Amino acid sequence: MEYTDALGKFLPDQDRPNEGVFSFQDDDEQWISLRYDLTAPLARYVAENFDSLPKPYRSYRVGYVYRNEKPGPGRFRQFMQFDADTVGSASPAADAEMCMMAADTMEALGVPRGQYVVKVNNRKVLDGVRDAIGIPDNAQWLTVMRAIDKLDRLGPAGVRQLLGEGRKDESGDFTKGAGLKDADIALVVGAVEAAAQMDARLRDSRIGQEGRAELDEIAKLVAASGYGADRIKIDPSVVRGLEYYTGPVYEVELLLDTKDEKGRSVRFGSVGGGGRYDGLVSRFRGEVVPATGFSIGVSRLQAALTMLGKLDTTPAFGPVVVTVFDRDRVADYQKFVAELRNKNIRAELYLGNPKNMGNQLKYADRRNSPCVIIQGSDEKARGEVQIKDLIEGAKAAAAIASNQEWRETRPAQFSCAEDEIVAKVREVLARHDVRWG
Amino acid sequence: MEYTDALGKFLPDQDRPNEGVFSFQDDDEQWISLRYDLTAPLARYVAENFDSLPKPYRSYRVGYVYRNEKPGPGRFRQFMQFDADTVGSASPAADAEMCMMAADTMEALGVPRGQYVVKVNNRKVLDGVRDAIGIPDNAQWLTVMRAIDKLDRLGPAGVRQLLGEGRKDESGDFTKGAGLKDADIALVVGAVEAAAQMDARLRDSRIGQEGRAELDEIAKLVAASGYGADRIKIDPSVVRGLEYYTGPVYEVELLLDTKDEKGRSVRFGSVGGGGRYDGLVSRFRGEVVPATGFSIGVSRLQAALTMLGKLDTTPAFGPVVVTVFDRDRVADYQKFVAELRNKNIRAELYLGNPKNMGNQLKYADRRNSPCVIIQGSDEKARGEVQIKDLIEGAKAAAAIASNQEWRETRPAQFSCAEDEIVAKVREVLARHDVRWG
Repeated sequence: MEYTDALGKFLPDQDRPNEGVFSFQDDDEQWISLRYDLTAPLARYVAENFDSLPKPYRSYRVGYVYRNEKPGPGRFRQFMQFDADTVGSASPAADAEMCMMAADTMEALGVPRGQYVVKVNNRKVLDGVRDAIGIPDNAQWLTVMRAIDKLDRLGPAGVRQLLGEGRKDESGDFTKGAGLKDADIALVVGAVEAAAQMDARLRDSRIGQEGRAELDEIAKLVAASGYGADRIKIDPSVVRGLEYYTGPVYEVELLLDTKDEKGRSVRFGSVGGGGRYDGLVSRFRGEVVPATGFSIGVSRLQAALTMLGKLDTTPAFGPVVVTVFDRDRVADYQKFVAELRNKNIRAELYLGNPKNMGNQLKYADRRNSPCVIIQGSDEKARGEVQIKDLIEGAKAAAAIASNQEWRETRPAQFSCAEDEIVAKVREVLARHDVRWG
Repeated sequence: MEYTDALGKFLPDQDRPNEGVFSFQDDDEQWISLRYDLTAPLARYVAENFDSLPKPYRSYRVGYVYRNEKPGPGRFRQFMQFDADTVGSASPAADAEMCMMAADTMEALGVPRGQYVVKVNNRKVLDGVRDAIGIPDNAQWLTVMRAIDKLDRLGPAGVRQLLGEGRKDESGDFTKGAGLKDADIALVVGAVEAAAQMDARLRDSRIGQEGRAELDEIAKLVAASGYGADRIKIDPSVVRGLEYYTGPVYEVELLLDTKDEKGRSVRFGSVGGGGRYDGLVSRFRGEVVPATGFSIGVSRLQAALTMLGKLDTTPAFGPVVVTVFDRDRVADYQKFVAELRNKNIRAELYLGNPKNMGNQLKYADRRNSPCVIIQGSDEKARGEVQIKDLIEGAKAAAAIASNQEWRETRPAQFSCAEDEIVAKVREVLARHDVRWG
């Protein structure tokens, strides 16, 4: 939770500042909001602890964020983000480090090189484009940015339409364009396609030049660290939606193919991104505090890793289940559990209604237990227990043909003395490569 | 977040159901609340996934909970809880397991045996007391429970006053009592002090007998698993505040001494507790689903562990800092960082303003870096770098007397060839037992 005014965009002129964020008033009538990202709270934290933090301040965090939006497939009102930020550095080296870290993160998660790319642009280059054309109107500029953002999906021809009069899509819906003149459209498309021949007006924009110099510096730094353009590449079409970026922006795109809702093959697309936000901390302090950071949407990345088969979805083995044969002897069974646990072997007593042994074995199966322990009155009289090896049992059921032979060589159920329980269970676990301890 | 009605106690007859919980309306006008504990969401989850879960369902979780209360010292509106629960078992063995787990948890965290105790009682025993006296009025019974809850702090004499006419404390404040007759007061105090001579009325209460039988069963089970009364003990004075408990209740008390706000020595007290809540899941389903669970307040436990010196507060070593001597050669310095990182040695480029080497060294100190790497133009010309061992440097500063001698045997700063950086940094780390990789 944060005080709503610490989130910046939501001012208390609204009776209930609930646009996009979940907000409520506390007893002192102050508005409180659930954080909608991890960046605004970081900015507040750094401003609050500025003097005691080493600067530049590098940090990372993971947590839930909340959006007051209509939920939909894959869109939740509560979801997890993972962020890394460097606050207090104006150097493009800090941005370069974020991009390299994003690439390293993908590879550490098992995304093969060539199946992801970190694309980098600079808001200042886009500001240079705005400068060069001369677009004072914010709404018109937003329409231009939205058009650029669609380059991947619509190609240059579609973007040209959106920059000009507008575009009619396949369904016949018409999107009004930004209304630029042809020469300006050519400048924009040339700029975002990184055409070698640069428009003279663009060359003259001071902010545009600054942006390109920063991108060159980033390119030099990542190359020096051995990151090729297959991993991190300058891409002038990257826009990023959030408004607070002031310099380099970057996003990680997965190059996997997936299907869209109509079954067409599309790229998986962005799993995270970020950029430089030199203005966020300064909202709390008199001075400008430069900062750059990266954010990953954890569920989206998880979906991608599942598609890639990089998430191990084999259920882990559960505990050894000690069954309850005679409900008056629960304390004895609990003792077996304690013995196994004392040797760091996961074990549990069956805690459901013990009247039916079949239910207890079904429970052990659902828990993916490697084995169960049973002690009826006969075994008790002999000071023994039965150990039933459920993994072996499952294999036997799967190989009915050679069942007879298998039974003779590898018993799925056997007796042992009470004081051998730990040793015998260890043998079962070792046989099936179940780790303990 | 949960739908407010899933939390049970807050019904939509209030315009704004904000008593104790943070609540707000979503766009569909449904009330949503931040969870105030982890138990109500678990009950909702189990009810929702009842058919697919193995039953009994054991689980644990950790997360923030939110209370709409006045914050105070050590009382936050957002704090972390750690919970473990078994849903679907009516057996006292499930309660016994919770108590044993609580004891194991304390020892695993380093709280020595004898410095904690898990105290167990049963709401049914208290219900038996209510039965025996005959207290139909809920408010009066609540006053009795509150009085019992103060046994530790006020002793039997104070509790007797609170059960009778009332009690005047040292400051002169008067607390009105429950107004019980002398014989009933004797019964209550006898019951909570577990006097051997039990009041005949108490013996006759069916629910009281049931409660005592369950406690006997728990005692038998924990004893069988080797947990003595020094770790888990039946204590008839345990009440637990929350209303939803239906059977065994338990709490972990730390026996450490600490100071209260007036500087008096007091016991640290409870760091967690729980009990059986057979009614919670059934709010969502037609049938009764028995459940028992345990909750630890993480910050309170952390405070206790800090007092015990069980939390390692030594700052970990930071990364090797590669300094920026010549700002045009940042790419070279970044390459050194990349080399170290490729060998799994934590390293970073100084990302602040590089104009002052002193600031860079100060930064490395604040980051607790084991060493820094410096390369000026002279070193560059020779293909060398300087490695400055900051740990050795700090020792030198601390031992000024033998400074001269020390300097001669263990150089805090030395040169090495560029291609020896990794090897030499490893030597420095190994010398100071800094782990890497």
